[in-house]
Amino acid sequence: MRRWLEGYSRRDLIDDGLAGVITAILLIPQSLAYAMLANLPPQAGLYASMLPPILYAFLGTSRTLAVGPVAVAALLVASTLSGHGISDPAVALIYALILAFEVGVLLLLLGTFRAGKLMNFLSHPVLSGFTTGAALVIVVSQIKHLTGIPASGHTVPSTLAGLAAGWPQIQPLTVVLGSAAMASLWLAGAPLSRLLRHWRLPDRLVLVAGKSAPLVVVLAGTAAVALGHWDADHRVAVVGALDLGLPKPNIGFLTASQPWLDLLPSAALIALIGYVESVSVAKVLASRRRQRIDPDQELIALGAANLGAAFTGAMPVAGGFSRTVVNDTAGARTPLAGIITAFLVGLAALYLHGLFIHMPQAILAAIIVVAVLNLVDVKTLRQAWQYDRTDAAALLATLFGVVMLGVEQGLLLGLTLSLLLFIWRTGHPHIARVGRVPGTEHFRNIERHTVDTWPGLLLVRVDENLCFANAGPVEDFILEALTDAPDTRHVILIASAVNAIDVSALEMLQGLIKNLRTQGITLHLTEVKGPVMDRLERIGLPDRLSPGRVFLHTHQAVQALTDPAAPCPGSSHCPDRVRT
Amino acid sequence: MRRWLEGYSRRDLIDDGLAGVITAILLIPQSLAYAMLANLPPQAGLYASMLPPILYAFLGTSRTLAVGPVAVAALLVASTLSGHGISDPAVALIYALILAFEVGVLLLLLGTFRAGKLMNFLSHPVLSGFTTGAALVIVVSQIKHLTGIPASGHTVPSTLAGLAAGWPQIQPLTVVLGSAAMASLWLAGAPLSRLLRHWRLPDRLVLVAGKSAPLVVVLAGTAAVALGHWDADHRVAVVGALDLGLPKPNIGFLTASQPWLDLLPSAALIALIGYVESVSVAKVLASRRRQRIDPDQELIALGAANLGAAFTGAMPVAGGFSRTVVNDTAGARTPLAGIITAFLVGLAALYLHGLFIHMPQAILAAIIVVAVLNLVDVKTLRQAWQYDRTDAAALLATLFGVVMLGVEQGLLLGLTLSLLLFIWRTGHPHIARVGRVPGTEHFRNIERHTVDTWPGLLLVRVDENLCFANAGPVEDFILEALTDAPDTRHVILIASAVNAIDVSALEMLQGLIKNLRTQGITLHLTEVKGPVMDRLERIGLPDRLSPGRVFLHTHQAVQALTDPAAPCPGSSHCPDRVRT
Repeated sequence: MRRWLEGYSRRDLIDDGLAGVITAILLIPQSLAYAMLANLPPQAGLYASMLPPILYAFLGTSRTLAVGPVAVAALLVASTLSGHGISDPAVALIYALILAFEVGVLLLLLGTFRAGKLMNFLSHPVLSGFTTGAALVIVVSQIKHLTGIPASGHTVPSTLAGLAAGWPQIQPLTVVLGSAAMASLWLAGAPLSRLLRHWRLPDRLVLVAGKSAPLVVVLAGTAAVALGHWDADHRVAVVGALDLGLPKPNIGFLTASQPWLDLLPSAALIALIGYVESVSVAKVLASRRRQRIDPDQELIALGAANLGAAFTGAMPVAGGFSRTVVNDTAGARTPLAGIITAFLVGLAALYLHGLFIHMPQAILAAIIVVAVLNLVDVKTLRQAWQYDRTDAAALLATLFGVVMLGVEQGLLLGLTLSLLLFIWRTGHPHIARVGRVPGTEHFRNIERHTVDTWPGLLLVRVDENLCFANAGPVEDFILEALTDAPDTRHVILIASAVNAIDVSALEMLQGLIKNLRTQGITLHLTEVKGPVMDRLERIGLPDRLSPGRVFLHTHQAVQALTDPAAPCPGSSHCPDRVRT
Repeated sequence: MRRWLEGYSRRDLIDDGLAGVITAILLIPQSLAYAMLANLPPQAGLYASMLPPILYAFLGTSRTLAVGPVAVAALLVASTLSGHGISDPAVALIYALILAFEVGVLLLLLGTFRAGKLMNFLSHPVLSGFTTGAALVIVVSQIKHLTGIPASGHTVPSTLAGLAAGWPQIQPLTVVLGSAAMASLWLAGAPLSRLLRHWRLPDRLVLVAGKSAPLVVVLAGTAAVALGHWDADHRVAVVGALDLGLPKPNIGFLTASQPWLDLLPSAALIALIGYVESVSVAKVLASRRRQRIDPDQELIALGAANLGAAFTGAMPVAGGFSRTVVNDTAGARTPLAGIITAFLVGLAALYLHGLFIHMPQAILAAIIVVAVLNLVDVKTLRQAWQYDRTDAAALLATLFGVVMLGVEQGLLLGLTLSLLLFIWRTGHPHIARVGRVPGTEHFRNIERHTVDTWPGLLLVRVDENLCFANAGPVEDFILEALTDAPDTRHVILIASAVNAIDVSALEMLQGLIKNLRTQGITLHLTEVKGPVMDRLERIGLPDRLSPGRVFLHTHQAVQALTDPAAPCPGSSHCPDRVRT
């Protein structure tokens, strides 16, 4: 039993109950919509909102994370299905269950090895580019439901081409329904909140009014279709009759002859995106209440939730960003709110399935479009553009990759780019030849400051950890500086900014020591940090340096290696003073 | 024309001529052997030693790099061929030409974008594990030629299984030939050198004697086979009759209907390994003579050499480690030595092809085995094991991957592992809560030192660049420290070891500022380095910090934010002093 159950109060129950109801009102139409987005039968979304959040409630470390179907994971499922050419809903469902199972196993494995930090390789600009791109892909993918034009396609260009070709088949009533729904949902957002606040209504009531808009719109749209016989008379597409009920334990997919191994990369991407989205929102909300999120335990909890999804016939799940914020704002205090939400969704599945018969798909599409427009993130792009063009380029490449090539391809492109950028940056360390600021014990870049240098002495400071990505460049810098100053006898490597030295860099240093020795040059180290020195001593580097030494301070090194009475003045008199 | 042609002297010519002859004597049998290792016709190796080194001589920046067929690239070609199920020599040659072409184009592209530093992502332990593993795979792959037992297999286990199954077909004369050749080659190495030096022979003569051993062994073995009719009477496998001559320009492969795209990943691996091997040996030798290697120009030169290989019917080329050392030791002064070598190989192809009719494959296999045993590198493993177990694990994983799974698979495994390790380490930055050493202005880790702390003040020092891989962990550390010290009013982030902040970390900082503000806590920065501060100012971070400030020194920050008259003594009296 989790800690939150200890000392649970009546006040907590009231808050959790209200938050649970509000979230359920939002979740029921969203579940149907995201199942449609994933090209799965509606129950795959509804069932994803039942057992998975309950499992998360008992295993997760966030008190308010709302686990269930989410837009981006649904899009990735849709992309996987179309990549495998699956259109039969029954087969599609089996694929989705396999994906959920694999997502669960991957997350559990990572959690078991406490490898949550490996998920950090998704940089923020790449995530932002991916999310914005995914939102655009989702919006374009829903145009067919909002217009009635049949069109399919992996990517935005092919979908748009299909829509353009099918233009004559546009269904006016569907367009009206979809547009009215989008307009209502938009009005029920910020404008309605402002109005109700203006009327001084209590905050929670404002929230209920805003967040029940999707349900109201669905009910109104369904009523209109049913009363006007629009589905039968005007070809307005509806969800149709469903045999729902509560989810039944289902392990049939385990023996399915589907391409388990081929689905693994897609599952890995869903796991990555789902986990990153969940943990980032959970962290923000938890820290506001000074609560902690354990990233490794989150892997376990989300892994269990996805296994729960797989075994109850549901699509892969994650913690949804907007729904979690709603749950939190609605006053949820503990995961009991999520359990209450799950029960309400279950009740809806049991007793409201008659609604589906006339529920128009255009309304669900409108809900999706309005929800994902919140994912479009221009702020990060603007900031990245100002701050670091390479990060902005990674963001744009990911965005265009997602839109033009496909969701998975774009994400892989972004991941590769961010790793390459990381290596590239580490491979371009800031290295400076330094000299002494006259009259002080401070050493500064000779290219930026007027400093003293000494003939026969080369002082180099590396402002980066030494590792495989920059061992070569660091060596090149020193060797190049030596060809410019051929009378050098001592090279002093200032390690004040070096927090770590890996084996590749260690080999480079050892090679450099030997190499310099054959040229009659001695390498010395100064200002080596404690932990770095501990390791170097373990393999006896100080002995190998000999006659080179390890000095505590650069100043000491210079004093020991020069006649301190005769430093070159801070000008160009010295023969070894080179401006490169 | 390259710089080395200016001021070329008669003395240079004599040295280059001798070095060229010595290298050619070594190269001719090696070219045949490496073609056999790659499962290609012998001319693919000989031709690789003609035009490609001449192109390199005019474009490269190393004066002594010996470009031609190399063992590891040959193994990668063999692995690609067997991966595609190719055994017909004519088809295999077309594949090899496509690979050489793609390697050339990739290197030229990288060179055009001056992206030599991207090649740095191959860490030294992974390279060591790969090379050792490749040497073992090569040795095992040659057992069939040394014993006459027919066996094939991608990996060491499957090849060994094939050899075990074919055991009864062992050919005693082949075993004798191969063993005698290996023993002779081994004796002609260090033992012969020692003996000749003992007799005070000149160094260059010692070198000639040692390095002509492969040629002598080939000639002796061929003579034995021809005179004893061992090929006809005892099934000793021979190279056989060849229509050689000089290479003819050949662009026929460009229109071949082979899987160009499928070969690209293999070509990328060959390009990577070939380039890294070439540049690392070129660098070591150049620095001894205080010459420079331009990594980007090397991409161009090696790219051109590989295109030259493709268009003259040769296998992919690189700078060979051992051959380059021989060339250098033999006294080569300029790339003219390489051009002389190339002409000598051409003469051999023109006039010595009669030799091939009775040349035993067992002798070539012996040459390969003795050559690649030098690649087995135990030193790096031993050092990595002492210095950093994770690097040692990456080395061993690569080695076992190469041996058990296959060459390409093992290399990819190693590359992935070294990237993951890199991210993992960056994701585990050293972060410390610090306090003031009593009576000084120095701040140290509160877990290691007895220091002053102040109630309401949290001082955190991060010893790592802030980037996407550790933005989360840094934030977690601060938030966790705050849950331990709930009365904190000010958080001071000491950035003395931060050389860079990327967009992901910037977003984290901005989120943290806002998040802390909602809790009534102010974030301050101290000791921010100049270049980092420049960037932060560009996007107005100091304003967003407000009322938080950027202090030059931590000491100033503490003085400004506390009543300096009343620091907590360096003990556990302070309420916010927590040991975690």
